[in-house]
Amino acid sequence: MSGKVAVIGTGLVGSGWAIVFARSGCEVVLFDSGPGAAEHARTVIAERLEELAGFDLLKDTPAEVLARVSVAPSLAAALDGAVYAQESVLERVDVKRQLFADIDAVIGPQTLVGSSSSGIPASLYTDHIACRDRCLVAHPVNPPYLAPIVELVPAPWTAPATVQAVRALMERVGQAPVEATREIEGFILNRLQGVLLMEAWRLVEDGLVSARDLDTTMSQGLGLRWAFMGPLETIDLNAPGGIADYARRLGPLYQSIAASTAEHRVWDDTLIAKLEAQRREDLPAEALAERRAWRDRRLMALARHKQDMQQAESGE
Amino acid sequence: MSGKVAVIGTGLVGSGWAIVFARSGCEVVLFDSGPGAAEHARTVIAERLEELAGFDLLKDTPAEVLARVSVAPSLAAALDGAVYAQESVLERVDVKRQLFADIDAVIGPQTLVGSSSSGIPASLYTDHIACRDRCLVAHPVNPPYLAPIVELVPAPWTAPATVQAVRALMERVGQAPVEATREIEGFILNRLQGVLLMEAWRLVEDGLVSARDLDTTMSQGLGLRWAFMGPLETIDLNAPGGIADYARRLGPLYQSIAASTAEHRVWDDTLIAKLEAQRREDLPAEALAERRAWRDRRLMALARHKQDMQQAESGE
Repeated sequence: MSGKVAVIGTGLVGSGWAIVFARSGCEVVLFDSGPGAAEHARTVIAERLEELAGFDLLKDTPAEVLARVSVAPSLAAALDGAVYAQESVLERVDVKRQLFADIDAVIGPQTLVGSSSSGIPASLYTDHIACRDRCLVAHPVNPPYLAPIVELVPAPWTAPATVQAVRALMERVGQAPVEATREIEGFILNRLQGVLLMEAWRLVEDGLVSARDLDTTMSQGLGLRWAFMGPLETIDLNAPGGIADYARRLGPLYQSIAASTAEHRVWDDTLIAKLEAQRREDLPAEALAERRAWRDRRLMALARHKQDMQQAESGE
Repeated sequence: MSGKVAVIGTGLVGSGWAIVFARSGCEVVLFDSGPGAAEHARTVIAERLEELAGFDLLKDTPAEVLARVSVAPSLAAALDGAVYAQESVLERVDVKRQLFADIDAVIGPQTLVGSSSSGIPASLYTDHIACRDRCLVAHPVNPPYLAPIVELVPAPWTAPATVQAVRALMERVGQAPVEATREIEGFILNRLQGVLLMEAWRLVEDGLVSARDLDTTMSQGLGLRWAFMGPLETIDLNAPGGIADYARRLGPLYQSIAASTAEHRVWDDTLIAKLEAQRREDLPAEALAERRAWRDRRLMALARHKQDMQQAESGE
């Protein structure tokens, strides 16, 4: 994989994207409107690359990967000759509208633009620009170099060829692109997360289960298959006759559960305080940062584990 | 861990339970009312133990573990002197009612009884027996020797001491018990699975995403953290100020998604056919069995991976 990729906005998300593209062989050019921000990002990237190498998650040395990452003096310089630009600026409509206007003013005819927007659809900040058929949402999970998923969500005016080309690019750099066929609130990932969280909070609110046991239900049970198969393949394999067989057996139970969850709880201050209290019992606030570092190590080890499995299977 | 455990009903679920108890050092006595069924189960258990040893998931040799598993000539012999009995007979109220009456007639004063029931609450088949305060649901995920979760669900008359003792037993044998404080349809795990599946089917029905991409959203994104943390710890670590901070930022989005999912879809034949067609495109029906074997290998490798992680952490 080669080609130039512009990374615009170099905070946590943008830095993560830079690693994704650079480790796969792309030339990455960083731009951030904050003074010194892109330079700072490059040092953060250097640290992350060392960690990844420690988990055997880089094909090249950290120095070789970092050598592909440079800082551009301007937005125009970053975009010049880029096949793709990944935008990861602040999640605010006005900020994104201005940035996309600025991009539109200098973008070449071959460059496609993906936005890391986690919730705002592209139609709200690309309607006013000439290159809007080459723009879409490309929403990652943090950090994208450990969680390969990227949600591609076109605006009504995004060209199908744009979606196809960005999907192919993401696959080439080792990500796992999925497509929403049109804009929908929360895209796919956060809709799935949202319905599960709403039920989780309801069960804890009603005192049916503790927050700790609820997490255990996932991490020691439901989440194991989902970490390598997803929920539909899971049920497809869980009945002798596949998914249709499963749906006929268990559909009525799930319909009945769904009916009992139709009235949704509001996460008000009282409910938030209840969940907060249970979590702080298991993890004091001052231990959050340390636990995040633990999570990142576990994510790296899991990524390494999954790569090993896939390599063993493709070698069979 | 020692002590005698009776495994009553020795199909797929019961055989799995026998492995859980035997590998941790318990004496396991199998009983099944089907002629030859328990003897057959013992040969299946022997095969599974070899596989587990191949993934370095046994502390002892398969022969040592198998030596702890014997077949009882009667229900009374199986229960005699047992500290615990795990019941895994057919998921039908009449079958379980009869079995629990039979158990009640011969059970000693120290034995507790857990039912593998995946949906029928214990109150529907233990109301009529003298030892009902020592009975509860202990619902596993298959296979329990790879997915440690076990949901403990008391009937209204289950003694709190019974729940505590079974929880302690499950922890001693290496399982991950969670408690529902009272009976609820679907218990905890299938409620979480159900709400997510209902949303997944809706998104595929509406053509917003393919079944394949929906699974990828989980297996390459959402499911990674959930496989070792669970959903509440995940959001606790995903905002600078922890879960309360996260809830104030993202609560409104999830409320809004929940409102848009309030009308639930019925999994009728048309919808089932749609999902079925997409799954069969990715996996022909004749390949289901082979893919299940793949899943089991991946589950074993994931279990080994998680054990390695935990051992490394406890050694730090």
